Amino acid sequence: MSKRALSISREQSFPEWYQAAVRDGDMAETSPVRGCMIIKPWGWGVWERIQAELDARIKDTGHENCYFPLFIPMSFIAKEAEHVEGFAKEMAVVTHHRLKNEGGKLVVDPQAKLEEPLIVRPTSETIIGDAFQRWIKSYRDLPLLINQWANVVRWEMRTRLFLRTAEFLWQEGHTAHADRDDAMAETLKMLEVYRAFAEDVLAMPVIAGEKPANERFPGADNTYSIEAMMQDGKALQAGTSHYLGTHFAQAQNIQFQNEQGQLTYCHTTSWGVSTRLIGGVIMTHGDDDGLRIPPRIAPHQIVIVPMLRDKPEDKELIDFCAALEKDLKAQGVRVLVDAKPIKSAEKRWNWVRRGAPVIVEIGGRDASAGNVTFMRRDKLREGDKVASHTKARADFVAGVQQLLDGIQAALYAEAKARLDGNILTGIKTFDELAAYFGTVENDDEGGAFKGWARVAWSRPEGDKLEAIADRLKALKLTIRNAPLDQTEISGACLFTGDTAREYVLIGRAY
Amino acid sequence: MSKRALSISREQSFPEWYQAAVRDGDMAETSPVRGCMIIKPWGWGVWERIQAELDARIKDTGHENCYFPLFIPMSFIAKEAEHVEGFAKEMAVVTHHRLKNEGGKLVVDPQAKLEEPLIVRPTSETIIGDAFQRWIKSYRDLPLLINQWANVVRWEMRTRLFLRTAEFLWQEGHTAHADRDDAMAETLKMLEVYRAFAEDVLAMPVIAGEKPANERFPGADNTYSIEAMMQDGKALQAGTSHYLGTHFAQAQNIQFQNEQGQLTYCHTTSWGVSTRLIGGVIMTHGDDDGLRIPPRIAPHQIVIVPMLRDKPEDKELIDFCAALEKDLKAQGVRVLVDAKPIKSAEKRWNWVRRGAPVIVEIGGRDASAGNVTFMRRDKLREGDKVASHTKARADFVAGVQQLLDGIQAALYAEAKARLDGNILTGIKTFDELAAYFGTVENDDEGGAFKGWARVAWSRPEGDKLEAIADRLKALKLTIRNAPLDQTEISGACLFTGDTAREYVLIGRAY
Repeated sequence: MSKRALSISREQSFPEWYQAAVRDGDMAETSPVRGCMIIKPWGWGVWERIQAELDARIKDTGHENCYFPLFIPMSFIAKEAEHVEGFAKEMAVVTHHRLKNEGGKLVVDPQAKLEEPLIVRPTSETIIGDAFQRWIKSYRDLPLLINQWANVVRWEMRTRLFLRTAEFLWQEGHTAHADRDDAMAETLKMLEVYRAFAEDVLAMPVIAGEKPANERFPGADNTYSIEAMMQDGKALQAGTSHYLGTHFAQAQNIQFQNEQGQLTYCHTTSWGVSTRLIGGVIMTHGDDDGLRIPPRIAPHQIVIVPMLRDKPEDKELIDFCAALEKDLKAQGVRVLVDAKPIKSAEKRWNWVRRGAPVIVEIGGRDASAGNVTFMRRDKLREGDKVASHTKARADFVAGVQQLLDGIQAALYAEAKARLDGNILTGIKTFDELAAYFGTVENDDEGGAFKGWARVAWSRPEGDKLEAIADRLKALKLTIRNAPLDQTEISGACLFTGDTAREYVLIGRAY
Repeated sequence: MSKRALSISREQSFPEWYQAAVRDGDMAETSPVRGCMIIKPWGWGVWERIQAELDARIKDTGHENCYFPLFIPMSFIAKEAEHVEGFAKEMAVVTHHRLKNEGGKLVVDPQAKLEEPLIVRPTSETIIGDAFQRWIKSYRDLPLLINQWANVVRWEMRTRLFLRTAEFLWQEGHTAHADRDDAMAETLKMLEVYRAFAEDVLAMPVIAGEKPANERFPGADNTYSIEAMMQDGKALQAGTSHYLGTHFAQAQNIQFQNEQGQLTYCHTTSWGVSTRLIGGVIMTHGDDDGLRIPPRIAPHQIVIVPMLRDKPEDKELIDFCAALEKDLKAQGVRVLVDAKPIKSAEKRWNWVRRGAPVIVEIGGRDASAGNVTFMRRDKLREGDKVASHTKARADFVAGVQQLLDGIQAALYAEAKARLDGNILTGIKTFDELAAYFGTVENDDEGGAFKGWARVAWSRPEGDKLEAIADRLKALKLTIRNAPLDQTEISGACLFTGDTAREYVLIGRAY
């Protein structure tokens, strides 16, 4: 095997490759707090770009940002729990409000027990619903379209950086509407915002569709998701949008006076994406040299490395790089000159592993000739060799937006070809399905790339659906979603033999 | 008394006026969670502008953003507590990670007790220090300049929206340096960033200076602050910057190999500002008609209210407003057309109370004549009457940046005159000080505007300092800071009679 910048390849072990890519790409690390991550500057920079780009789209669709408390009284959760089946109970519980010194040791002060335990928000339907119930009086107050960017905590047993952590960061949209149609339109509008954002900004192709009943958010009438295909063939649920009917409104008494003067329950929605998206970007675009960050979310789109030699000539190099930086910034490019006192080869490989879209290396000859020598991170190698390009400085500057757009498009095209080429459509029976996916003893070890299967589905419910879910679970499979974009269907459901109503996608998942 | 848009004036009761201004200005409200606030869209919009403007300045001075865990293991806090006197112990303690259903009731699951309690971060020195200890190996890694935007929790007994809440939002900078000089330069650099930000962006004049020893952050060698004067004469500590010496580095083993190869403790700093700044803006600029938000942080700098009459002519009005909005946006102005189906007079007063810098009202005559009629929120009234101005549309658009700059400058000038005019310099003895400030039975009731006193100070320490602090406390006074900008001093310290070394500012405070 040829030498690559990471110590392990995707082929050898995708999960270990992922860990190496996150670590060597300076994205994040585990912390001494179980399940909580430290997001490092390069990873945080990606999240800042994701926030900025998505926030603009959330505002453009008429939503306003707010901020609600980190804590939720246990009684609020109880109200939801009574109302909603399948409610998860793993959450961080605050029971005391003071530490004290006891014999030179710091302990929890038993005198400072809270009257009512507080839950660190796992999601904010209940606390935001309580505000909605106060804020909404009449049809004139509707629709109420709110979003918040916040940290949330779910006590996960097995955690993995970005993909599943006890604390994670997200945005959660919460809206209230006068009727089902308006709420459903909102649910689908935000799903489309997520789809377009994932594809246009993250260069991550996704399938938007509806989750089967057993995969719904507890309390939702309909749950929709966008699903992306990772390089190991697994699905990543990258965003969800829920139509909640009047369930939460009833539990929390969110009512309005309609135009006829009648008191009526609101129809509510919620929708969210999280730092999990960063895991999706890594597993969609990374290669054996590390990360490849799409230009639209790269904290630095171009990194300039002056090949300094600790000699007087360095000054000319540094001036050349500074002038280039200025010109590129004038083109609206996010650019960094990395003048740290370490070897330029080391810097190059650091930026390769971090996935900076374009790495420019300026040596003495470039500076004298007025040239720019650069690597495209999306096409780093020709065969095993690093592919380096040289352009006249003026041409490089004039073409820089086109270059970045080209990288964004190339990353998308590569991922899109993978997704489109790996949805198997010929499977008609459960045995074929089982034979195709086979048994994987340890899910984490990966196994051969299998992609997803598209199969006919009759929308069974209740016990029938549970039994199917159990059979799939034994193969570590789940129904990902029923794509919104359906082709005409005829024939029988793979599971029930009943008349098929739609296709669903099945695969292994994160 | 003449009628104003708030139901209570500053004169009648400043604390009640503050509550009314926050509430009627749609900034925030109390939540069902003790001491935690809900920040509403208009208040959140102000915070977003504060974040964006300050974040740019933090980045321009070479800092990178990260994100560290919400939770801190109790043992980390213990390490700090052993090390640091005066450590506050009121914090939210997570002791369990699961709820369970017991006889139809949701309860904390006693089986799910954490081995080690987790503290919801009150500040992140310990958890970030732990990362620094891993990240820093050599002098080449220094300085390490990190910032994070996060929520923190301190279990406050008496809370007030924005000013003192159990959960609040802030940025906390944490840096590590090779020596005292570099760390001290950083401490003062960030103090200056805060000063310039408060004055240039918030239009809130402040005095930057050093806190006396008894007001230092626990574990700091030096604590600096910016102090602003509110309209009731009280001081608001609006930002702090700490030089921590090697105390935290020693407690957490943050060491580096210096150029000579010796293992050496880092010198660290920390500095922060919080959502408290919003309280400062309200109490600096608000008047009896509500908030006055400086243009640089106003979510909408100009609000256009079309005076609709539910008639066919409305279309012309709406078109005129849309065209005006477009022209103003092209000038880089944040502008909103408020076309909500409520009466335009009600809309006007809503925006007055929220403090939008410019409120434009367009009626039929304006649209036909091509005029713009507007109010400046900073100069809302002439006598008791609302002052309205009319300009030709083209002139209004051409002069809009100048108008907004003028409002920003006028708000600053007004607050600056108040600060400069209310620092009493003639007080020489403690009796004079006591007589001037008098006794206030209940601090919250305000009393006459007293401003601050500037008195001579010999920098006493230890028991002597404590005794002075106690005497001041009986008058509800504290030493705010010793301004960096000192005039030459001669004579004796007001408290000790020793030779004075500097002036300090004394006042009541939030």
